Amino acid sequence: MRDFAAIILAAGQGTRMKSSLHKVLHPIGGRAMLHHLMASVDELGPQHTVVVVGSGREQIEGAVSGRAVTALQEPQLGTGHAVQQAQASLAGFSGDVLILYGDVPFVRASTMRKMLDRLHADDAPAIVVLGFEPKDTLQYGRVIAGADGTIEKMVEHKDASESERACRLCNSGLMAARADDLFDLLGRVGNDNAAGEYYLVDVVNVARADGRKSAVVITDDANEVAGINSRAELARAEAQWQDFKREEAMANGASLRAPETVFFSWDTELGRDVTVEPSVVFGPGVKVADRATIRGFSHLEGAIVGEGCEVGPFARLRPGAVMERGAKVGNFVEMKKAVLGEGAKANHLTYLGDAEVGAGANIGAGTITCNYDGYFKYKTVIGPRAFIGSNSALIAPVRIGADAIVAAGSAVSRDVADGELRMVRAEQLVKPGWADRFHDTMKKKKAEKKA
Amino acid sequence: MRDFAAIILAAGQGTRMKSSLHKVLHPIGGRAMLHHLMASVDELGPQHTVVVVGSGREQIEGAVSGRAVTALQEPQLGTGHAVQQAQASLAGFSGDVLILYGDVPFVRASTMRKMLDRLHADDAPAIVVLGFEPKDTLQYGRVIAGADGTIEKMVEHKDASESERACRLCNSGLMAARADDLFDLLGRVGNDNAAGEYYLVDVVNVARADGRKSAVVITDDANEVAGINSRAELARAEAQWQDFKREEAMANGASLRAPETVFFSWDTELGRDVTVEPSVVFGPGVKVADRATIRGFSHLEGAIVGEGCEVGPFARLRPGAVMERGAKVGNFVEMKKAVLGEGAKANHLTYLGDAEVGAGANIGAGTITCNYDGYFKYKTVIGPRAFIGSNSALIAPVRIGADAIVAAGSAVSRDVADGELRMVRAEQLVKPGWADRFHDTMKKKKAEKKA
Amino acid sequence: MRDFAAIILAAGQGTRMKSSLHKVLHPIGGRAMLHHLMASVDELGPQHTVVVVGSGREQIEGAVSGRAVTALQEPQLGTGHAVQQAQASLAGFSGDVLILYGDVPFVRASTMRKMLDRLHADDAPAIVVLGFEPKDTLQYGRVIAGADGTIEKMVEHKDASESERACRLCNSGLMAARADDLFDLLGRVGNDNAAGEYYLVDVVNVARADGRKSAVVITDDANEVAGINSRAELARAEAQWQDFKREEAMANGASLRAPETVFFSWDTELGRDVTVEPSVVFGPGVKVADRATIRGFSHLEGAIVGEGCEVGPFARLRPGAVMERGAKVGNFVEMKKAVLGEGAKANHLTYLGDAEVGAGANIGAGTITCNYDGYFKYKTVIGPRAFIGSNSALIAPVRIGADAIVAAGSAVSRDVADGELRMVRAEQLVKPGWADRFHDTMKKKKAEKKA
Repeated sequence: MRDFAAIILAAGQGTRMKSSLHKVLHPIGGRAMLHHLMASVDELGPQHTVVVVGSGREQIEGAVSGRAVTALQEPQLGTGHAVQQAQASLAGFSGDVLILYGDVPFVRASTMRKMLDRLHADDAPAIVVLGFEPKDTLQYGRVIAGADGTIEKMVEHKDASESERACRLCNSGLMAARADDLFDLLGRVGNDNAAGEYYLVDVVNVARADGRKSAVVITDDANEVAGINSRAELARAEAQWQDFKREEAMANGASLRAPETVFFSWDTELGRDVTVEPSVVFGPGVKVADRATIRGFSHLEGAIVGEGCEVGPFARLRPGAVMERGAKVGNFVEMKKAVLGEGAKANHLTYLGDAEVGAGANIGAGTITCNYDGYFKYKTVIGPRAFIGSNSALIAPVRIGADAIVAAGSAVSRDVADGELRMVRAEQLVKPGWADRFHDTMKKKKAEKKA
Repeated sequence: MRDFAAIILAAGQGTRMKSSLHKVLHPIGGRAMLHHLMASVDELGPQHTVVVVGSGREQIEGAVSGRAVTALQEPQLGTGHAVQQAQASLAGFSGDVLILYGDVPFVRASTMRKMLDRLHADDAPAIVVLGFEPKDTLQYGRVIAGADGTIEKMVEHKDASESERACRLCNSGLMAARADDLFDLLGRVGNDNAAGEYYLVDVVNVARADGRKSAVVITDDANEVAGINSRAELARAEAQWQDFKREEAMANGASLRAPETVFFSWDTELGRDVTVEPSVVFGPGVKVADRATIRGFSHLEGAIVGEGCEVGPFARLRPGAVMERGAKVGNFVEMKKAVLGEGAKANHLTYLGDAEVGAGANIGAGTITCNYDGYFKYKTVIGPRAFIGSNSALIAPVRIGADAIVAAGSAVSRDVADGELRMVRAEQLVKPGWADRFHDTMKKKKAEKKA
Repeated sequence: MRDFAAIILAAGQGTRMKSSLHKVLHPIGGRAMLHHLMASVDELGPQHTVVVVGSGREQIEGAVSGRAVTALQEPQLGTGHAVQQAQASLAGFSGDVLILYGDVPFVRASTMRKMLDRLHADDAPAIVVLGFEPKDTLQYGRVIAGADGTIEKMVEHKDASESERACRLCNSGLMAARADDLFDLLGRVGNDNAAGEYYLVDVVNVARADGRKSAVVITDDANEVAGINSRAELARAEAQWQDFKREEAMANGASLRAPETVFFSWDTELGRDVTVEPSVVFGPGVKVADRATIRGFSHLEGAIVGEGCEVGPFARLRPGAVMERGAKVGNFVEMKKAVLGEGAKANHLTYLGDAEVGAGANIGAGTITCNYDGYFKYKTVIGPRAFIGSNSALIAPVRIGADAIVAAGSAVSRDVADGELRMVRAEQLVKPGWADRFHDTMKKKKAEKKA
C-alpha cells in the first residue's frame, strides 16, 4: 500500500436519532459505528486518521483517543468545508486521502483499497468516486460515466435530466484523491448554490475545468454504503449485520436452532459443534469452545466457555466468567469474575462473584458468594471436589478446602479445611399443633376483615 | 362534531377462534380488540355506544361496563337485523350513527370522522359506506361508484359481473347514516335471499329505491379494516401493531437493538435515549424515563422505571414496582408493589414484595422479603443506605433503619435500628475429617448399589 | 398396503455440516431428521427399513436400533451402489422398495404411498420417480415426461439441452420399484461417467433398454423434498417446521401472542384456550392442558401442565415436572421430577427437585429442596396446605406434614408433623451503633486506598 490518510466526516447533527449520544457512537453488534469503520480502515494501515466533528467533539475524542485525531468543523458549511477542516491535521502529508463517513460504517477494506488503487492506475484520475447501484435510486445524485469508469458528470437528483435519472449509478459520497490535489481542488470549490454550502462533490467539476479526469469505482454491494440516520435505520443495520454473523457461525460449524433469536457481538467466537438454543445474547468478549451448548435465554458478556461446557437455560455470565472444560452453569445462575473448574457444576439459583471453584466441585442450589461489604470486594476460593450444600452463604474472604462439605443452609464466615464438614445451623425448634392453632386464628381474622 | 352514536356489532360466534373467551375480547398489545376500537370511538366523543352481542353477553357487559351498553341479538338473522337490535338503546336519539365491528378493531378515529362528515356534505347522502382497496379483492363485495363517490351499486362478489369484479373498491361493511334514516331504511330491508338473512348493505338499495343517494368514503389503508377471525389472524394483527409501536418508539428516541423481539403494550411509554436490549416484554402500565436501560430477557408490568435506571437482564417488574432515578435491578430479581429509592440496588436473585427501599440502599444477592404468612401481606421498610447482606430473609412487618447492616444469611424478624448491625447466625460447627469419612462411606455405598 | 421395504440412504459425508454428529441425526423440532423420516415411513407399516451408512455407522445404529437395520457402504461408489448395499438385508423379500434419503426428512407418508400405488397402476412401470417443480430449477436433473407421467428421459442439468432445461419438472432422487426389478436393473447400471460412480437414476435407462416404462409421480410441495446439507439449511428447515407447528397450535385454539418467538418440539401438545406469551421454548415431552397460561421466557421439557395452570415468566420445567390443575409456578423457579398438587404455588426463586407438593401448599420465595448429597438423590414430601416460609432449605429425605408451617429462613433436616410449626433460627444478635462505626472505618479505608 502507498501511504494514505483517512478523513472520516462525523460533524452531522444526527437530529433524527434524538439522542445525546453522538450518532456515530451508536453501536451495532456491540461496537460503535465509527469503530466498525475504523477497523476496516486499520486493516489497510493508514498513516493518519482524522475524524471531522461538530458538536459532541469530546465524545468522539474519548472514543478514538490514540487511534485518530479529531478536527473541528464549526460552523458547518458543507461536506467540502468539512474535509478542509482536516487539512491542518495532515500538514506535510503528501500521500493519498480517503474520504469516509462515520454514519456509513460498513464499507469494506477491499473497497477502500480498490478506490486507492484506482487513483494510481494508468490514467491517474484526480478524483476517485465510489459509485453504487441501489434498488431505489430516487434520492441519490447520479454518476454519469463512460464504460471505462471515466466520469462525465456528477449530477444531483433534483438537477438531473430524465435520461440522467434513468442512469442507475449513484454517488456514495466516498472519495479518494491525492492529498495535494484534494486540498487544491477544494480550495477552489464555491458555495454558489441554494444552501450556500461547499459541496465535496464539486471537486470533480473543478478538476474537469482543469482538464483532469475523475473516475468511478463501483461496489457490487449497495448495502456497504448505506447511511444510518435514525434509530430505525440503526436497527435495520443491526439486523443485517446479525444475519451476516449468524450465517458465518453456522458455516463454521455451530448449530443455531433459531438463528433469528441469537444476537452476537462483533468479537463473538464460537467453536465447532457448538449448539445454541433459541434466545441467546452474546455481549462483547465471549469465546465458546468446541462442543459447548448454550441453552435458551442465556446472556453472556466477557466470558470464556470451555470445551463441552453447558450453559443455561437462564444463565448469566458476566465479564471474567471462565468455565473450564465440561463445567456446567444452570438456570438462574450468575457468574462474575469467577472461574468454574473442570467438570464443576453450579446448576441452580446461584451467584458466583469473585470466586475460584476447583475441578469437580458441586455448588448447591441457592448458593451465594457474599463478595461485597458495601465498600470492597472479597474473594471466595473453593477447593476441588468440595460440596457446597444448598442455600449456603459463603462470606468472603473465605476458603473452602478440597473435598470439604458445607451443610445446607449454612452461612460460612470462617475457612473450612480440606475434608472438613462445616455446618452453621440453629436447633430445630418444634411447636406441635402451633400451625393448626395459627390457621384457626388467621381464618377468623380473615373472615372478620371481610365482614 | 355533531352528535353521534356508535353501534358495534359483536354478535358473531367466532367459532374459528376455538375459545371460550368472546372473540372481540382477545387482546392485541395487551388490550381487548373491542377496547382498541372503543378508544378510537371515544376520541370523537359519542353520545352513545351500543355493542350488539349474541352469546357471551355477560363477558362483553363486564368489559364495557359504564362506557357502553349492550343489546342482545337473539336469534341472529343477519347484520341488518343486528343493527336493528340497537334501536331501543337509541330511543329518542336523532344524531348520526356509525356502524362498526368488534372484530375490526383498528379503524382510525380520523376515518370515522371522515365518514360522519361526508354524511353532511352538500349532497347529503342517506348512507355513507367505507370502501377499501385490498391487495386481493376476491372474497369481498364490491362498491360500484362514480368519480364523486356516489354509489351506483353494492354487489356481492358471487353476484358480480366480470366488469364489476374488475373493480377494486370493496365494501368494508362500515357505515354511517342519520339515526332516523338508518332505522327507517332497515325496517324495509327484506330477507329474500339464499341465507334468509337481513343484510345491512341492503339499506343502500332501499335508499336508492326512495331516490336517495349513498356515497363511499375510501380509506387508503386496507389494514385498517382487516377483520380478525382466527388466532392466526389475531397473531398477524398483533405483529403489525407491534411493528407500528416499535417504529414509533424508535422515532421518539429509544434504541431497540432487535425491535422484532421487543413487545409493547398499548400504553407503554419510553423516554428518550432509552436502550432496550433483545427480548423484552412490556405488559400494560409501564413507563420508562429517559436514559434508562432495559436489558435482555426482562419482563415488566405496571412498573415505573426512573431516569437512568438499569433493569435486567432477567428482571421481572410486577405491578407497583417503582424504581427511582438511577436505581438498579439485576438478574433474577422480582419486584412487586415495591419502591427502590434513588440509586438503590438489588442486583441478584432477590424478591422485593410490599417493600420500600431507601435511597442508596444495597440489597444483597438472595435477599427475600417474606411478605406473606398465607393469609395477609405485610410490609418491609428499609432505610436509606442500609446494607442487606446476601441470603437474608426479611420477615415482614419489619423495618431496617438508615445505614443499618444486616449480616449475610440472617433471618430478621425484629426491627433493626439506624446504624445497627443485626446478625442472626448459629455457631460454626466444625467437624474435621468428617467429609473425608463421608466420601469414603458414600463411595462404597455407590459401588455396592452398582454391584 | 402391499408389502414394502424402505431403503434410506445416509452414507454421505455431510462435510458441509462441519460436525462430528452424523448429518441425519441433527435435530429439527427436537427430533433427528432421520427419525422424522422414519416416522412417516412407519405410518405405512414397512416390512423392512434399511439405512445405508458410511462413516458414523455406530451413531446411526444407536439411533435406529430395533426399528431398522443398517447396511454399510464402503467404499462409496454412487447412489446406485449405495442402494445395492441394502440387498443383503432384503434377501428373500419380494415386495416393493421405496428409496429415501436421510437428509430429505419431510417427505409425507401420503406421497410415499402415492409412489408405491403408482407402481401397481395399470401400466405397471418398472420404476416410479418422485418429481417436483422447484422455484429455481437450476441445479437439478430434469424429468422429461409425457402428460400421462410416462418418463421419456432423465437428464442431468449439465447434459440437458436448452429445451430440456426449460422443463420445470425435476428429479427428487426418490424412487419406488419392485425389489426384484430394482436389484436386477441396478446390477446392470455401469459407471462409465466422469465421476466413475454408479448412479441410481440410471435404472430408468436400463429399464428403457429392456423396453420397460418408468413413470413420474409429482409432489405439489417442493419443500417436501428439500435436502439439508448445511447448518444454515438445517436452520431454515427448522424455521419452516416451526411455522407449521405454530399455525397448527393456533388453529387448534391456542393463542400465541408472538408465534415467531415460540419454539415447539415434535411432540408438544397444547390444549384449547392455552395462552403462550412471547419467548417460550417447548422441549420434547410437554403436554399443556386447557386454559393454562405459559408466560414469557419459560423453558419446558418433559413436563405436564394441568388445566388452568400458570407457568412463568422465567419458569423452568424439567423432565418429570407435573403441575396439577390450577397450580402456579412463577419466576426463577425450577421443577425437576416434582409434582405440584392442585392449586399449589411456587411463585418465586425456588428449586423443587425430587419432590411431591400437596394440594394448596404454598412454597415461599427462595425455597430449596436439597435433594442431593453428592452421591444420591433424596425425596421431599410436602403435605397439603403446608406453608413453607421463604428462604427455607428442605434437606431431603424429609417430610412436611399437612397444614404444617416452616418458618422463614429455616433449614429443615427432620420431619415436620401435621399442623406443626418448625423454626430453625438462631438468636437475633443486636449490635447498636456497630454499623455506624463500620461505615466510618470503611470510608476511611476507601479514602486511604484512593490516596
